[in-house]
Amino acid sequence: MSVGAYYYPEHWPEAQWDRDLAKMAEMGFEFTHFAEFAWAFLEPEEGRFEFGWLDRAIETAAKHGLKVILCTPTPAPPAWMGERHPEIYLIDAEGRPHGHGGRAWVSPAEPVFREYTRKIVAAMAERYGRDTRISGWQIDNEPGAPDDFSPAARTAFQAWLKSRYETIDKLNEAWGAAFWSLRYDRFEQVVIPNVSLFQGDQTSPHAVLDFRRFTADVQAEYLDRQASIIRAVAGSGQWITTNYTNITDNADPRRNRALDFISFTMYPVRGTDELGPDGFRLGSPHRMASACAFYRPIGGVTGVMELQPGQVNWAAINPQPMPGAIRMWMWHAFAGGSSFVCTYRFRHPTYGSELYHDGIVGPDGVTPSRGGLEFARVIEEMRRLRTLYDPAAQMPERLAARRTGFLWSHENLWDLDNHKQTSLWDTWRHRFIYQAAVKSAGAPLEFVGEEDDFSRFPFLIAPAYQLMDEALIAKLKAHVENGGHLVLSCRSGQKDKNGRLPETPWAGRLRPLMGAEVEFHDVLLGTGRGHVGRGKASYEWNVWADVLRPETGTTVEAEYSDQFYAGKAAATVRRLGRGTVRYIGVETKDGALEREIVRAMYKEAGIAIDDLPPGVYVEWRDGFFTAVNYSSSPAQVRSAAGSEILIGRTPLLPAEVLV
Amino acid sequence: MSVGAYYYPEHWPEAQWDRDLAKMAEMGFEFTHFAEFAWAFLEPEEGRFEFGWLDRAIETAAKHGLKVILCTPTPAPPAWMGERHPEIYLIDAEGRPHGHGGRAWVSPAEPVFREYTRKIVAAMAERYGRDTRISGWQIDNEPGAPDDFSPAARTAFQAWLKSRYETIDKLNEAWGAAFWSLRYDRFEQVVIPNVSLFQGDQTSPHAVLDFRRFTADVQAEYLDRQASIIRAVAGSGQWITTNYTNITDNADPRRNRALDFISFTMYPVRGTDELGPDGFRLGSPHRMASACAFYRPIGGVTGVMELQPGQVNWAAINPQPMPGAIRMWMWHAFAGGSSFVCTYRFRHPTYGSELYHDGIVGPDGVTPSRGGLEFARVIEEMRRLRTLYDPAAQMPERLAARRTGFLWSHENLWDLDNHKQTSLWDTWRHRFIYQAAVKSAGAPLEFVGEEDDFSRFPFLIAPAYQLMDEALIAKLKAHVENGGHLVLSCRSGQKDKNGRLPETPWAGRLRPLMGAEVEFHDVLLGTGRGHVGRGKASYEWNVWADVLRPETGTTVEAEYSDQFYAGKAAATVRRLGRGTVRYIGVETKDGALEREIVRAMYKEAGIAIDDLPPGVYVEWRDGFFTAVNYSSSPAQVRSAAGSEILIGRTPLLPAEVLV
Amino acid sequence: MSVGAYYYPEHWPEAQWDRDLAKMAEMGFEFTHFAEFAWAFLEPEEGRFEFGWLDRAIETAAKHGLKVILCTPTPAPPAWMGERHPEIYLIDAEGRPHGHGGRAWVSPAEPVFREYTRKIVAAMAERYGRDTRISGWQIDNEPGAPDDFSPAARTAFQAWLKSRYETIDKLNEAWGAAFWSLRYDRFEQVVIPNVSLFQGDQTSPHAVLDFRRFTADVQAEYLDRQASIIRAVAGSGQWITTNYTNITDNADPRRNRALDFISFTMYPVRGTDELGPDGFRLGSPHRMASACAFYRPIGGVTGVMELQPGQVNWAAINPQPMPGAIRMWMWHAFAGGSSFVCTYRFRHPTYGSELYHDGIVGPDGVTPSRGGLEFARVIEEMRRLRTLYDPAAQMPERLAARRTGFLWSHENLWDLDNHKQTSLWDTWRHRFIYQAAVKSAGAPLEFVGEEDDFSRFPFLIAPAYQLMDEALIAKLKAHVENGGHLVLSCRSGQKDKNGRLPETPWAGRLRPLMGAEVEFHDVLLGTGRGHVGRGKASYEWNVWADVLRPETGTTVEAEYSDQFYAGKAAATVRRLGRGTVRYIGVETKDGALEREIVRAMYKEAGIAIDDLPPGVYVEWRDGFFTAVNYSSSPAQVRSAAGSEILIGRTPLLPAEVLV
Repeated sequence: MSVGAYYYPEHWPEAQWDRDLAKMAEMGFEFTHFAEFAWAFLEPEEGRFEFGWLDRAIETAAKHGLKVILCTPTPAPPAWMGERHPEIYLIDAEGRPHGHGGRAWVSPAEPVFREYTRKIVAAMAERYGRDTRISGWQIDNEPGAPDDFSPAARTAFQAWLKSRYETIDKLNEAWGAAFWSLRYDRFEQVVIPNVSLFQGDQTSPHAVLDFRRFTADVQAEYLDRQASIIRAVAGSGQWITTNYTNITDNADPRRNRALDFISFTMYPVRGTDELGPDGFRLGSPHRMASACAFYRPIGGVTGVMELQPGQVNWAAINPQPMPGAIRMWMWHAFAGGSSFVCTYRFRHPTYGSELYHDGIVGPDGVTPSRGGLEFARVIEEMRRLRTLYDPAAQMPERLAARRTGFLWSHENLWDLDNHKQTSLWDTWRHRFIYQAAVKSAGAPLEFVGEEDDFSRFPFLIAPAYQLMDEALIAKLKAHVENGGHLVLSCRSGQKDKNGRLPETPWAGRLRPLMGAEVEFHDVLLGTGRGHVGRGKASYEWNVWADVLRPETGTTVEAEYSDQFYAGKAAATVRRLGRGTVRYIGVETKDGALEREIVRAMYKEAGIAIDDLPPGVYVEWRDGFFTAVNYSSSPAQVRSAAGSEILIGRTPLLPAEVLV
Repeated sequence: MSVGAYYYPEHWPEAQWDRDLAKMAEMGFEFTHFAEFAWAFLEPEEGRFEFGWLDRAIETAAKHGLKVILCTPTPAPPAWMGERHPEIYLIDAEGRPHGHGGRAWVSPAEPVFREYTRKIVAAMAERYGRDTRISGWQIDNEPGAPDDFSPAARTAFQAWLKSRYETIDKLNEAWGAAFWSLRYDRFEQVVIPNVSLFQGDQTSPHAVLDFRRFTADVQAEYLDRQASIIRAVAGSGQWITTNYTNITDNADPRRNRALDFISFTMYPVRGTDELGPDGFRLGSPHRMASACAFYRPIGGVTGVMELQPGQVNWAAINPQPMPGAIRMWMWHAFAGGSSFVCTYRFRHPTYGSELYHDGIVGPDGVTPSRGGLEFARVIEEMRRLRTLYDPAAQMPERLAARRTGFLWSHENLWDLDNHKQTSLWDTWRHRFIYQAAVKSAGAPLEFVGEEDDFSRFPFLIAPAYQLMDEALIAKLKAHVENGGHLVLSCRSGQKDKNGRLPETPWAGRLRPLMGAEVEFHDVLLGTGRGHVGRGKASYEWNVWADVLRPETGTTVEAEYSDQFYAGKAAATVRRLGRGTVRYIGVETKDGALEREIVRAMYKEAGIAIDDLPPGVYVEWRDGFFTAVNYSSSPAQVRSAAGSEILIGRTPLLPAEVLV
Repeated sequence: MSVGAYYYPEHWPEAQWDRDLAKMAEMGFEFTHFAEFAWAFLEPEEGRFEFGWLDRAIETAAKHGLKVILCTPTPAPPAWMGERHPEIYLIDAEGRPHGHGGRAWVSPAEPVFREYTRKIVAAMAERYGRDTRISGWQIDNEPGAPDDFSPAARTAFQAWLKSRYETIDKLNEAWGAAFWSLRYDRFEQVVIPNVSLFQGDQTSPHAVLDFRRFTADVQAEYLDRQASIIRAVAGSGQWITTNYTNITDNADPRRNRALDFISFTMYPVRGTDELGPDGFRLGSPHRMASACAFYRPIGGVTGVMELQPGQVNWAAINPQPMPGAIRMWMWHAFAGGSSFVCTYRFRHPTYGSELYHDGIVGPDGVTPSRGGLEFARVIEEMRRLRTLYDPAAQMPERLAARRTGFLWSHENLWDLDNHKQTSLWDTWRHRFIYQAAVKSAGAPLEFVGEEDDFSRFPFLIAPAYQLMDEALIAKLKAHVENGGHLVLSCRSGQKDKNGRLPETPWAGRLRPLMGAEVEFHDVLLGTGRGHVGRGKASYEWNVWADVLRPETGTTVEAEYSDQFYAGKAAATVRRLGRGTVRYIGVETKDGALEREIVRAMYKEAGIAIDDLPPGVYVEWRDGFFTAVNYSSSPAQVRSAAGSEILIGRTPLLPAEVLV
C-alpha cells in the first residue's frame, strides 16, 4: 500500500513548492495529487488553457521522487463560465438556481457544461495522458449525483425514460399512473417528481425510483465520458478512477463502466456519537470496513483517495481524533485491501472554506501535525512490511470457509428511503447491523450484485433487499439448494423491480424460499419498546417487525414476546436442498439478535468463527493479519496459530493496531 | 347504518372487476364508491369524455346489488391540463408553483380550472344524475382549502374584499391599517398576507383573518358550484355531499350551502401517542366523537366517507391498529349518528403513493385483511340490530336533560392559531379537553353556531371563543337568564369579530355576563409548572391563565396557588337570572380541573350524570346504547336500567364494544 | 434621566389626543415620541406631504408640557410606493422578494428607495428642524441590516468591493480565491455569498466577512444620510440618534458617523429561561448592563428608546414580567448611564400585529397598567433624586481603580458565527460570561474599540477576539508593558483581519504576548463533559478548549483534568513589563472558572473588589450607588461607606432596587 497527499500548487506561492514537496518526500510520501478544483487556473479565459504552472509543479514533484495523481477540475467551473451560461448550475428541490461563489453545484446533464467539460478534459489528456510521471487520474471529486430540477435535467430525464420504456403506455404501467390520474400522454409532459414539493409520499414512488436511477446514471455517465476521453490518449499507461464518498446515497458507483477501479474518501470522526465514551474520537467503526468491502470487488482493487488527517471543519461539531486513530484507520485501509491511502491534504489551508481543516503540516507550512506524524509512522511501518511481503500468500482455509457475500443494490436503498413507512427506519444502520454481525465472526466480507456469481460465497446475506424479481428469487433458491447459506432480513422481496407489490399475499413470492409467510408487519413509536426472545435472551426493538408464520419444516429462531402478536415468529430458519435460509423479520435496537443469528448460521454450518467484540476487526491480507480496535476498551485478540507479531501488542488498546 | 367500500375500477384489469365486486357484496358491503381521482380516465383528452368504462363498472356493481357513490374527480386534473394551463396549480407560501406528478394542489379560484371543473361535472351529471343505481355524490376529496398565493387567488381575494368592505376606507379601518402604514389606497394594491414570509406576527392579524375567511369561502363555493350543477340534473333523487377531514383547519365546512349533508374521513391511528400504553394502536379518543358532534348538526345527518381499514402509509410512523379497534370505530360512528361508514379502500393498492395502505382485501386481491374481517363482523352485527330497530325510540329523558352545546366558529380557531401568544397553545387540544369533560358525564353533545337557536341546550360551552360581538354577548346573556348554564373558557370574548380589542378594560364587555374582570393573562415556559387549587385538589398548568377578579355575588371555583398572583381566582361561577355562568380562565395540563368544573355544573343544576373514565364513551341512538373503550384498561360500564346486552360484555375491555 | 413614552396620533381618533397626552403628562412623563412608521400618513400620495395632523399632535403635546422626539418613518413605506416600485423591497436568502402588507423589509441599497427616503426626510427636516418643541430625532427604527440579495444590493456590493480593493487581484487575494476556483475576473462577476444556499461552510468565509461589513456599512450609511439631511436644517439645536436593538448581529452601531449618540431598545422578558426559577419574569440579567456599556462610550451618552412596559407579543412565549421588574430595569438603565428611558408604548394597541403588547395604559385608553404604575413610581423617585444631584460628583477612587475595558469588534462576531467549528459556540454567551465575571467584582465596564485609547483601562478583556493584525497585537503588548492587565480568551488572535490564518504555528503571533503556545484546540459533543481544574476546584466544559503549552516564566492557572490531554494547561498568566497577560483557553459551562480567573486578576493587581452574586449589579453614577437584583434570591448588598440609603432596603429582594 502506498501513501500520498493532496497538494494544491495554485494555493501557494510558487517559491514554496519546492520546500513543500521536498518535505512531503522527506516524510516518506510516495505520491501527490494535483489540479482538483483548479479549472479557473487551467482555463482562466474561455478556450485559453494555461498548463505552465502545472508543468512546473509536476516537475518539482518528480524532482523529489513523487508520482502524481492528476485530477480533472470539473466540480469548480470558473466564474466566466457561470456568468456567460448560468444554466450550467443545477436547480435544487426548492427551485433555487445555484451559482458561482462557493463549492459549485453543477448540472452534469446540461449540454453547455458537458461541452466545456469535454474540452478541458481533452486538453489535459492531450498534455498529460502520456506523461510517465503521472500514475493515474481522478475524475471530478466526490461525485454525489445531487438532485437537479433544471430544465436540462428534465429534458434528459424525459429522454432517459423514452429510452427505457419506448412507449408512454409502458411508462404509465410501470409508474402505476392510474393512481391519482398521474397518467401521461407523451414523454414531453413528464415532470421530475419533487418529493420536497409533494411532501414525499404524495408522488409516485415508481417515478421517484426512476428519477433516482436516472440521476445515478447521469452521474456515472458524466464520469465515464471523462474517463473515455483520457483513455483514448493514455491507454492503459495510467489508471483512471474517481473518489466516491465512503457511503453514497444518490450516486451508485456500480453504474460506472469506464473506470479502472473506484477509490473513496473517508472521514471517520465527524462529531457523531459512536461506540463507547471515546467513540466520537475514534470514528464510525463501520465505514472503513464497509467501503473496502463495497468498492474493492467493483474493480478488483480500491484505494482511499482522501483520508482524514486530523480535525475537520465541515461537521456540526468537529472534535480532535484520538491519538493513534489516524494510524489505525490507515492500517484498517490496508487490511481492507486498499492499494493506496492518500490524505486530504498536505498543508493546513490558511484561507477558504476549510480553514479549520488539518493538514499533514500545520498552518506554518512546515511543522508536521499530530496526524502528519501518524502518517509518517505508518509509512515507515509499511516499508518494513514490504520486506516480508509474499505475493504468493493464500487466504487461510479456515477464513475462506467463512467468506460472506452481502447482496446489495442501491435501488433498494432508494426505494426504502423514499417510502420508509416509519421515520425510524435507517437503511445504513440496518446494513451496518448485519456487517457488524459478520465481522464479529472474523469473516471476510464482499458486496455482491444480483448479476454476480453467488457460488464464491458459502454465506450470503441480503439486508432489507426489498426489490426482487422472480429471476433473483430463483437464483437465490438455486444457490441455497447447492449448499449456500442465506440470510434475508425484514422487508426483503416485498416489491418487484419497479417498486410495485406483486399481486400475491404480502411477500408471498418468497414463501418457497423461506418456508414461511409474512403475516403482516408492524412498527412502534420512537418511545416504543417491543421485545423478541431467542432462547432465554430478550432483545428490544421498535423500528420494524415482520410477523412470520412458519410452514412445517421451518424452525422458529426467535419470537415476539409482547404486542398483540406475542408468541409469533420473528425469525425463522429452514433447510432447503443442501443449504439453509434464514429470515430475520425484526430489527433490534443494538443488532444483538441479528448478531446471534448470523453467528449461529456459521456454527450450524460447521464453520469455526472468531468472537470479536464490537468495533474490533481482524483481517487477513497478503499473508498479514491486521487487528484494529474502534471500541473504548482493550480487546483480547489472539494471534493466529503460527503467526508472529510484527507491530503492536495484546491486549489491543483502543486506537491501536496489531499486525 | 350501511357500510361500503371504495373501489377504483381504473386501477385494475377489467377482468377482475366482477370477482372483486362479487367479493365485496359477499362480505356484506352494501355500496361502493367510484371515480374519485379518475379525471384522466374520464376526460383523456380535452373535451373528449370516456364514460364507457364507468358505465360497465356501475353495471357490475349493480349486478352484485351494490349501490354506487359517485365522486367528482376534480382533485386530480390530467397531465394535458397542467401542460396547457400551468396556472391551474396553486402557488404555496414559499412561492413555489405546484404542478402535475403527484397529488395535485390546484387553485379553486383560478378561472380556467373552474371552467374545466364545470365541464367535467356537467358531463358526469348529465350521464349519471338520473341513474337510480347511483345513491349519491361526493364532491372533490378531503377539501382542505390550502393557502394559495397565485395571481388568480390574489385577484379573487381583492374582489372578495371589495364585496365585503365596499370602500377601501372600511378595509383600512377593519384591518387597523394605521399600524405600520399598512393603509391601502385601492383594492388592487392589496397583497395576500403571507405569514411565512412575514414571520407570522409581522403582518396584520385582521388581514390574515380575512384571508382565512376568503380561502374557506372559495373552497366552499367551489364545492357548492359543483353541487349545483349536479342538483340541476339530479334534483333530490341523489344526495350530494363532500368528505371533509375529521378536523379541519383552513376549510370551514359550515360555509357550504348546496350540500345535503357533510361526511368526513377518519384515520384514528396515525403514529401518535394517545391514552395509555396501547393508545397508539387504539387511535385518538377524541376525533370520532368530535366529528360526529360537529358534522351531524350541519345537515341533520352525517356519514364516515373514509374509515381506516388497517395500517396506513402517510404518517411519520404507521403502526398496526389493535385487533378490534376498527370494529370499535365503526360502532362509535354508529353511536355518533353516522348513516353510513365507507372504507378507503377495498383492495390493497399494489402501486402508487399509498402502497403500504391496507385494504379490505390484501395485495393478492382476494384474501380479507384483519380489518376486512372486522368490517364483515360489524356488517353482520348491524344486520342483527336492524331487526330490533324502533324508529319511534326517543332519547331517555335523563339523557336529554344533559344535552350540551359546544359554541364553535372556525374564525376563532383561525385567529387563535395566528396569534397564539404562546407556542404552547393548541386550539384543538383545548377543545378536546372540554369535549372529554362533557363526555365523561355521558352527556349528548352537539356543535352550535352563533346563529343557531341556543334554547335546545340546557348546557352550553364556549371554549376559547375569542371573537365576540355585542349581539352574541347579549344572546348568551339572554340564554342564561332564561335558565341556560354557560361555561366560557380562557380567551373568550376578548376580541371583536375583526379580531380587534374593544376599547374597554381587557375582556371588559364580558363583565356583565361573567360577573368578574380579567385582570390580566399569563403564560409559562414549556418547562413551567403553575398550580391551581380547587378545594383540596391541585392541578398543574403552563399554557394559559386568565387572572380573575370576581365581583360581589360571583363565587371563586378555583384559585392560583403559586406565581405572583397566588390566591387570585382562576375560575368563577355566578348565578344570572335563572341560569349560571362559569368562566374557567386556566387550561390545565390534563384537563382535570376543567372536567371537575364541567361535572359540577351538571350536578349543581340537579342533573344526574355518568362518571366515565377517559376514552370511554356511552352514547344513545335509536333506542340502542353503545359503549366503546379507547383506554388501555378495562372499564366498568353499567347497563342502563331496563336495557339488555345485545353485543359484548362487561367489564368493557380496550378496543371492545358493548351494545 | 428623563422618562417618555411612544404615542401614535395616527392610530387614534383625534378627539382622544388631548385626553391621552394629558394623561401622559399627569403620570409624570416628560416627553413623547411621534411619527415612527407613519409614512403613509405623512406622504399619502407620492409627493403630497400631509403634516397638518402632526402639527396638531405636536401642539397638543406642547400644551401638556411634553417635549417630542420625532422619528423618520422609513421602515414603513406606503403601499403606493411598493406598487410602483417593487424593487424597493429586499430579496431574502431563499430568493423571495418581500413586499407590502406587513412590517416591510426594504432594501437600503436600492436607489429609488433612497430617493424617496431623501424626500420625506428633507420635508420633515424642513418642517420641524427648527421647531423647539422637538428635542431630537430618531432615524428609522431598530435598524437591523438584514441580508439583502436583491440586484440593487449586488450592484452596491460590487461597488463597495471595488472601492475597498481597487483591483480584482487584490480581492482574489483577500478572499483566498484560489480555493475551489472562486477567482473572479471582474468585479461585475461577483456574487453575494449566500450561506443558506451554500450551506454555510461551502462559500468563502472572507467573502462572507466582506458581505457582513458591506451590509453593516450600507445600514449605517443609510442612517447617516438621513441624519445629515436633518443636521443641515437643525444644526445642533436638536439631537439625532437611532435605536439599535440592545444586542445586534448584522448591524454594527459603531459604523455610524453622523449621529450624536446611539440609543437602544430593551425587552428583557422574552420567554427565555434565565437566572433561577423566576428568571423568566425578571429577564436577561446581561442585556441592560451590556447595552449601556456598549452604547454609552460610542457617543458619550446613551438612552433607552424603547423599554418593555409589560407583556409583549412577539416572542414564542410571552409571560408576565415579575411585579417590580420594570421599575428595576429603569433603575438599571439609570445606573448604566442612560440619559432617558422611553417606553414603547403609551396606549395598549387595539389592532395590528402587536395586539397583545402592553402599554402604559390599557386597551380602554385610560387605566394605567401595572407597568404604567411602575413607570410613574420611578418618575416620582427620579424627581426626588434630582434634588440631591451633585454635578461635580466624581467616581470613587476604589471604583475607578477597577475600570475595565472590553475589547470588541463586530467583525469578530461575524467571523465566529460564520465558522463556528462547533454548533455549540455562541458568541453572545461567551461575551456575557466575561461581562458577568467583571460585574461580580463591581467593576465599571466599557466597551473599547481597537482604535481607542487603552490607557484609560487598568484592566482589559478581549473575549474570543479572533481577528487581529500585527498592529493590534503590538498595541496590546505596549499597553501591558505599561502596566495594563489583559485577559485574552479562547480563539483570540487566531486569524488576520481578513479572517485568514497567518502562515505561522496556530495563533503563533500571540506567543510573545501570552507567553504560551496554542498546541491545538478541541470541542466536545453536546453531551460531552470535559473537566478543568484550578486548585481544588473543578469546572465542566464542552464548547471550546485551546490546549496551551506555556513558556518558561508563564504560570498555569488551570489545567485539563481529562481527555487525552489531561494535565495540559487550559489557562495561563504571565508578567509582561509592568502588567500581566492571561489567556483563558476554555469556555466552561457556567462561566465559573472565567469568573474566578478574572477576579484573581483584580486581586493580584492589589485592587479591592466586591463579591456580588450572579444577577446582582451595583453601579455608581453621579454620586449615587444603585443596586438591582435579577436573581431569584435575596442578596446581601452592603452600602458603600459614607453613603445613605435613599430608596429600598437590604437584603435586596429579587426585582428590587437599592439607591
